[in-house]
Parts: sequence; structure tokens; C-alpha cells
Amino acid sequence: MKITAPKQELLKSLGIVMRAVPSRTTMSILYCILIDATVDTIRFTSNDMEMGIETVVNGSIEERGLICLDAKMFYEIIRKMPESDVTIEVGSNYQTTISCEKSVFHIVGKDTTEFSPLPSIDRKDPVILTQFQLREMIRQTIFSISMNDANKILTGEFLQIRENEIRLVGLDGHRIAIRRVILDAVYENREAIIPGKTMNEIGKILTGETEDEVKLYFTKNHVLFEMNQTTMVSRLIEGTYFRVDQMLSNDFETKISVRKSELSSAVDRALLFTSEADKRPLVMTVGTDTMNLRITSPMGSMSDDVEIAMEGKELKIGFNPKFILDAIRVIDDEEILIYFLNSKAPCFIRDEAQSYIYMVLPVNFV
Amino acid sequence: MKITAPKQELLKSLGIVMRAVPSRTTMSILYCILIDATVDTIRFTSNDMEMGIETVVNGSIEERGLICLDAKMFYEIIRKMPESDVTIEVGSNYQTTISCEKSVFHIVGKDTTEFSPLPSIDRKDPVILTQFQLREMIRQTIFSISMNDANKILTGEFLQIRENEIRLVGLDGHRIAIRRVILDAVYENREAIIPGKTMNEIGKILTGETEDEVKLYFTKNHVLFEMNQTTMVSRLIEGTYFRVDQMLSNDFETKISVRKSELSSAVDRALLFTSEADKRPLVMTVGTDTMNLRITSPMGSMSDDVEIAMEGKELKIGFNPKFILDAIRVIDDEEILIYFLNSKAPCFIRDEAQSYIYMVLPVNFV
Repeated sequence: MKITAPKQELLKSLGIVMRAVPSRTTMSILYCILIDATVDTIRFTSNDMEMGIETVVNGSIEERGLICLDAKMFYEIIRKMPESDVTIEVGSNYQTTISCEKSVFHIVGKDTTEFSPLPSIDRKDPVILTQFQLREMIRQTIFSISMNDANKILTGEFLQIRENEIRLVGLDGHRIAIRRVILDAVYENREAIIPGKTMNEIGKILTGETEDEVKLYFTKNHVLFEMNQTTMVSRLIEGTYFRVDQMLSNDFETKISVRKSELSSAVDRALLFTSEADKRPLVMTVGTDTMNLRITSPMGSMSDDVEIAMEGKELKIGFNPKFILDAIRVIDDEEILIYFLNSKAPCFIRDEAQSYIYMVLPVNFV
Repeated sequence: MKITAPKQELLKSLGIVMRAVPSRTTMSILYCILIDATVDTIRFTSNDMEMGIETVVNGSIEERGLICLDAKMFYEIIRKMPESDVTIEVGSNYQTTISCEKSVFHIVGKDTTEFSPLPSIDRKDPVILTQFQLREMIRQTIFSISMNDANKILTGEFLQIRENEIRLVGLDGHRIAIRRVILDAVYENREAIIPGKTMNEIGKILTGETEDEVKLYFTKNHVLFEMNQTTMVSRLIEGTYFRVDQMLSNDFETKISVRKSELSSAVDRALLFTSEADKRPLVMTVGTDTMNLRITSPMGSMSDDVEIAMEGKELKIGFNPKFILDAIRVIDDEEILIYFLNSKAPCFIRDEAQSYIYMVLPVNFV
């Protein structure tokens, strides 16, 4: 194999496939990326057995072939090369020479037959949305999933397609985040629980451009994301997701409107007095035109008043301030609406169109 | 005590004094800063018993007094406050109220009599240089000192004043870094070994402006740095420093001139194949117009050619690439000169005026 490509192209492609190279594994081949130049295009592939990424590299093939290289070492070599064309040439016994101007590296690659190829997915009936839409949906929900949980379903995001609507849901038992987008076409109903790690990584690969499309293909056990030069395949989490709609409610006794920046600064201040080890509730006292926020701990206390417009009844309710802050931080609106029923019921932060819904369970306070 | 100051002024002053608040200590009072508003100015002081910092805060005193506050908590409260005036008021039992607009924090301070004041230093006969000069001298030598060493002298920097010349020296047994600056006046000869931590922190406090002065006062056991609104006092390291001049030599058999950026990129590439655990030498082969750099390890090898202008004899010599890179990275010249005697003798990287001298010992290679 002998291929040549500009350093920056290699670096861009490596930056993408590195996202499916595990940081720790017992199978050393998973630390490698596959360079495949057996046909007309150069492709880099990585696969951590849960998700895999393949991307086309803009470069030229002088001699066809393929090789597996340690991803981290390969990335670092390319990163440190001069800004010029880089040539990668494989000799006998996987001896690989990477050269750029007067810099020459020799490393030893690995047998490509050990590398697990990506599963073959039949690409039909894609669901199409913009890369911007999918990236925003992920950013606005991913924080609500559980990091490590005995219940694997909680570590994934629930993706649901109903006619011309796509909905992404994350929940962890204390809160729910839902983001809904209207699509340009009507689709068959589909549902999938996608691992949180997959969603995190695809969120970083998506360009965030409104002109770029991403196509989603579903099988029973996999989802495939197809972007410009890159495809990503991920296993799905097996099981039946929670009945989210039954947890939601439009009933409320108190509705407030508040400036997002003001509320977010005040809640952020309260975080000083709460920690994983000593969770202190943030007590919100909703009045007619002011909401008081108060938190007390052995280290000290904070009180803050935020201007609001209120409809309905006055109320006092406690929350984990981190859950409130996580939700309001990702909202793009400058003015947000919060709905309360009573001090024992969850609050809902949502816009009128319900394009986003954040539900947070209250906590007891004294 | 009741004082008021703009948030940004408090933050700026806290950023300075935080540099002498230890991250770990057994004496809990050292985690505190002293707010002293007993006379006409507000002063913040911190003291980790090796170095101490005092800075004047631009604010107003409504009621005189003083208090000790946990530095980290105080800093975080101020950082999270709105962009407005902050009032700090102390009631009975060290109860402290910090308020800004509608945000009110209550924390408990500490008895100020526990706090160790800074040592009293007689401020006479200062050595004066610009903050830019001192900051650059530190940046260009500090990397050569030893981090943790049985020999405490190696963990400090040697500051030497000879007539109108100030010299700063760092060495760790494998290399020496020397930076020399000509002063505007002639001073009495002075010498001091200043702890590396002090030099690091003062380097971050110095503005780096050529118009701002810093005055240095020396006593037998202390050095005091006097800047605009801030003074820093540090203990000195006791002992006699090495005879640096005896380690230097102007003899050479080979002299090369090389573009700094080219050499530094090539040496940086070589670092991929060396680590703390497996130190591999970088072998430099100096020819008439090219220097070859080569490093080999079980992971692979690298070879690079750098254009040079050479005077004298051809030479092959090995170095720890990190030591070479550390030195050339801090040099501002685009073209650097390296002097070699033979493959067993140290190399010297220095300018014609010897305003900087970096000596690196060679290592064996096969």
C-alpha cells in the first residue's frame, strides 16, 4: 500500500475515527484504525465493538493495499508533521513508513484480518434531518441520561419517529429531557434506544451546519448515521423504554416566566453549597413578582431574588439545583416558562410549542 | 468591618493572593486570606509560610475592621456574583455577609489573630528592573530546576547581581539555564537562592509590561518583590549555590546555526518515542550543511534532516530530546547557535552576547 494525502486531511479524518477508539480495552486490535485503500478511495475505520466509524480520506492511492495502525501513535505522528503532503507506505511484515518532507517515521502495523469490520447495514428508507438539528437535539437532552446504571436503558437516549416528528428523550429517574423537531417528510413509525456514548460522539462529529444532512437508517439491532464522507454504526440497547408520555402532564397551579440568564446565574451561585457528598436542596419561594432562591449548608448560605411574572398560586418547592441548571443552560430562549402543580409534584420547563420539555422531580426540604 | 468594591477589582486582587494559598496543608488557617481594612486601604494577604502576598484592593471602607475568610469559597462567591459592586460586612462571631445586587451569601470567617502576618522587611536599596524583564528571565530558566530533589538547592533559582548585571540560573544536574540582563544602574553585589515555587508564582503575577517596574529587596533569609499594588515576600533557600561559571566553557570544535522553528518541530517529533519510563536518546549527526536527528525505540523510529550552517568538525552526539526542546522553546531568536566540543562534552546553546546560555549534558547512544 502507498497513499498520499495532505496532513490536514489526514488529521481531520483521524479526528473523526479516533472517536470510536477505546481508551481502555483488553483487545489490542481495537486500539488500531484500519486504513483501507484496496479500491478507489482511502477509508479509515475504527470499531470499539459497540460503535464503529468509517470515513473517506481525501488523498491519492499510488499502490493499493490495507494496514492496521495504532490509532494514537498514528494520530500523534500526523499531528507533529510539517504542513505538507504525507505519504504512508507499507512494506513487508507490516513495516510502515510515514514520511513528510524530510521527516521519516517507521512503525510496525498489524494484520488487518484481526480487525472487526463494521456490520453490513441495508441502507434503505432513511430518516433525514439537518446535522444542526440532530446536534442540537443531542446537546439539549444528553445530560439527563444516567452515566452508570444497573438499568442499561437509562444510559441510552430514546429516539422516536412519529410521522413527521422526531423526538429524543433522556431520563435518569430524577428528571426527563425531551426535544422534538418537525421533519420535512412523513416517515414510518420507528423507535430505538441508542447508547449515550454513541450520541455523545456523533454529536461531536456532526458539523452543526443547517445545509448538511444526516441520514439515519435503522435495523433491529443497529442504527447507522450517514453524513458527508462519514458513516457511523452503533448497536442499540435492547429492551422496552419507559412510557414517557404517561410521566408528563399539562396540569399546573403555578406558572412563571423568568429571564433565563438571571435564573441561571442565581442557581449557579447556589451550587457552591451543594456537592455529590452533601446534596442540599435549593428552595424556591414563588411569589407574585419575585422568586426567592435559598440554600443552606454547614459551610454557609445563599439567598437570591429573581424577577418573575407569575400566574396562579404562590408556592415553596425544593430541587437539586444542578438538575435545574442543567436544563436551563441548554435552552436557547431568553425568557423561559416553568410550570408547577404543588411542592410534591415535578416541575416542567417547556416552551409553548413543547419543542422542549424538561421535567425535574422536587426534593424534600425543611 | 464593612467594605465595598467592584466585583472585578475583588476578583483581580483575589487572583493575586490565591497564589500563596496552599492546595494542601495541615494548618487550616493557611487556607484563608486576611482582609484588613483597619486603616485607610483594603488589603488582602495570604501566607503559606514559605511565601506571602499582600495586595491593595481598590474599594471603599464604610466601617473599619478585619476578618479571615476561606480563600477558595470567597473567590468562588465573588466569581459567581453579578457584575456590580460587592459589599462585605462582618457581624458578631465572624459572621460575614457578602452581597451584590439581590444575591446575599452568609459564611463564617475566622479569628484573624491565628493568621501569620508577613515578615517585616526593611525596604532599602532596591534592585529595580521592569516586570517584563523579570517575567521573561523566569520563563526562560525555570524549566531547568529540579522539581523534587533531596538537594533543596536544586529546587530553587539562583539570582545574582553583579554591578549593573542581573543573572538568573536554574540547574538540575543534567542541564543549566542562564539568563542575563543589563540593568539601568550599578548595584552592590548580591546573591540569593529563591524557591522555584516563588519564582513560578511571581512570574504569573508580573504584568509583563515594559513600563511597570518591580523592586527587589533582599535580607539574609528573605526576598521581597514590590510591584504596583502588590508585594510578595519569600523565604530563601539556605546554602551555597554551585559554582556555575566553572561549569561553563567557550571552547568548541563544532558550531552550528539552525532555524529555531525547524529544529524545535523535529525534536518535538522525536518525543513520540521517548518517555519517563523508557528514555531514548536523540542522536544528532552534524554534517556540513545538514544535521540528521534520529531516535529509535521498540515502538518505532524517526529520522529527520534539518538544514544548518556549520563551522568546524562533523560530530555525532546523543541527548535527552526533552532537554533540548525545553531550551529552544523559550528562546525568542529565530536563528539559534549551538556549540559542541565532542560527543562526551555538554553542548551550549547561546547567543553571541551570552544573554542566554543553555547547557545540556549528552547521553550515551549505540
